[in-house]
Amino acid sequence: MIYLDNSATTHPHEEVLRSYQKVADVYYANPSSVHRFGSEVERLLQQSRTQAAQLFGVHSREVIFTSGGTEGNNMAIKGIAFMHQNRGKHMITSSVEHPSVMEAFRALESLGFEVTYLPVDSEGKVQPSDVSDAMRKDTILVSIMSVNNELGTIQPIREIGQIVRPFPKAFFHVDHVQGLGKIDLPIKEYAIDLCTVSGHKIHGLKGTGALIVQNNVSLFPLLHGGGQELEARAGTENLAGNVAFVKALRLLLEKKEDKRAHMSSLRNQLWHDLIENQQVVINSPKNGAPHILNFSVPGYRPEVMIHALGEEDIFISTKSACSSKEPDVSAILQACGLNSDRTTSALRVSFSYENTEDELRTFVQTLNSKIEKLQATMGR
Amino acid sequence: MIYLDNSATTHPHEEVLRSYQKVADVYYANPSSVHRFGSEVERLLQQSRTQAAQLFGVHSREVIFTSGGTEGNNMAIKGIAFMHQNRGKHMITSSVEHPSVMEAFRALESLGFEVTYLPVDSEGKVQPSDVSDAMRKDTILVSIMSVNNELGTIQPIREIGQIVRPFPKAFFHVDHVQGLGKIDLPIKEYAIDLCTVSGHKIHGLKGTGALIVQNNVSLFPLLHGGGQELEARAGTENLAGNVAFVKALRLLLEKKEDKRAHMSSLRNQLWHDLIENQQVVINSPKNGAPHILNFSVPGYRPEVMIHALGEEDIFISTKSACSSKEPDVSAILQACGLNSDRTTSALRVSFSYENTEDELRTFVQTLNSKIEKLQATMGR
Repeated sequence: MIYLDNSATTHPHEEVLRSYQKVADVYYANPSSVHRFGSEVERLLQQSRTQAAQLFGVHSREVIFTSGGTEGNNMAIKGIAFMHQNRGKHMITSSVEHPSVMEAFRALESLGFEVTYLPVDSEGKVQPSDVSDAMRKDTILVSIMSVNNELGTIQPIREIGQIVRPFPKAFFHVDHVQGLGKIDLPIKEYAIDLCTVSGHKIHGLKGTGALIVQNNVSLFPLLHGGGQELEARAGTENLAGNVAFVKALRLLLEKKEDKRAHMSSLRNQLWHDLIENQQVVINSPKNGAPHILNFSVPGYRPEVMIHALGEEDIFISTKSACSSKEPDVSAILQACGLNSDRTTSALRVSFSYENTEDELRTFVQTLNSKIEKLQATMGR
Repeated sequence: MIYLDNSATTHPHEEVLRSYQKVADVYYANPSSVHRFGSEVERLLQQSRTQAAQLFGVHSREVIFTSGGTEGNNMAIKGIAFMHQNRGKHMITSSVEHPSVMEAFRALESLGFEVTYLPVDSEGKVQPSDVSDAMRKDTILVSIMSVNNELGTIQPIREIGQIVRPFPKAFFHVDHVQGLGKIDLPIKEYAIDLCTVSGHKIHGLKGTGALIVQNNVSLFPLLHGGGQELEARAGTENLAGNVAFVKALRLLLEKKEDKRAHMSSLRNQLWHDLIENQQVVINSPKNGAPHILNFSVPGYRPEVMIHALGEEDIFISTKSACSSKEPDVSAILQACGLNSDRTTSALRVSFSYENTEDELRTFVQTLNSKIEKLQATMGR
């Protein structure tokens, strides 16, 4: 199997699974229980929170463990909206966000909030000047992703942070699910108030993740209850999941420069090999994140290509796995202003540091021969 | 170790952990991915949903997998409130609910909803006539737990369901987290519209659970995004967690009558042994759930008792692990009208079908000798 759909989800690392298994089996007490066994688990929970905080360069009181990226994004966006609506009801995001951001904003619109969806350029990039222009006195939130999940476009988070910082009523949220480990994102330096990360995109487990929430930011919780996670997210803590998340994070950041260099080199090789085929058009920006390469084969439905590759045990994707209702059109590519030839034929290859040059070579060869065969079938 | 805090959380069953491990390692694709590997995972997801549905006696479109009990309760209560507020803004619950229900209602009050908190009798039981009296034309939700988490009191769910059923605007939600496997709760027959269950209370994993939502009930999702879980709960599905939950459920319901008989017999034995000590007062109702026995030792702070027992590797709890902010007073026992001698000295023993008579005998002996020692220390 050649798995090139790592932006959808990744294979959990063996050590991550082993940590999960051990903690779930041995340290199963409820950390809220007052007995010694509960306290022991509470101590391990604090330890994993502190480790996560160190890896993110924040204080341990700023790490809220969640069930994943969708929860983190919803918690940040709705949490700010419901908590701070008396300050204003205007929010800003981009037109290329992940569905868990986009749909959260749409839901808030239905409850009377006003949302500005910023346009992007042909590479999917938000212009900082557009953020400036959109800021108002009643703006309470700006939410922009660090790396686009379909194109790999890296957004100008530092610049946007500088624009939002002088507005005392506005918070800045970054959906960092696709960027984690792939690009650096110094949370404090970039003036990020809330930052969403997820475990299963980094060889961790599904159902794990965190929302980093700066100390001075209060949220209306999505999950009320026993006051867990610093009163921000109730529910019995999933210690095993949290430990597994921190383990995945630690492995990810070990020799991170080497990993990124490896992925960049894979991406360059793939780019080079793909454009040799005249029928392929690259959609990703040249200077995108190192793990995503999006391209179109105009005239060929992406589903057909994916199934053809699947026959050879090669797995790539169309657009985001989370927006597969309309099977073919990519709303992200549409927002980039690409023509329908390209928006309806886009394919995404996303790799992990565990992929190899050989795998990518086999992928391109297979792709080329599948295109040829389809071409013959279609009598072109 | 003698673990008697199974209402706080349970030891995951070995088979549950094994299933989790295997599915997480092998079937890791994103079920929303269009490729063959994604479809295979999607098929397994559907299969586990169907199995869960069969075990609950509902349709597979009525099972929404969640991250646990707190999410299920919040999703049901806030989901009905936000979706149906144009019908009315009045809701009814009891004064002995779990914090994840109680605090969700408190949060809704802060957003303009009106909530009636029904009183309970001295055993923690809601009177159906009180529900009748509280029902109004603008009532949109009644939320009552099946089994109280501190006392084990079984609520008259069937009767309440009959009262709510004729009100076309009102939905009926049952927090069944403590009741699952311990009492029967035929969801359709009892006219329950929404039913919360959790994995980690039944030897499953933390971070797993489900909300059963009858087909005709629409909810405002807490988590918007990629439309997963029948549009009710977005986020990449945690297939391994869901499979583990279904496995735990299946094991729980295997020979359930034998398991309940065993727990009932443990409870009777414990009751009988405890009341031989003149200093002990039982708080649980005689006909409560088979796995919870709550008692007070007036004059002794529960934390002290718990630590003393902890020294001997015996783990019991005070009240709910999820409401341990004020360390001693039990709000549930207060709601039952018990005097402060009892509300400030309550202990909860909660067992699983895996506990043994010997363990309970050792527990009572240890408890008695600890009381004697404390009595001597305190010079009584």
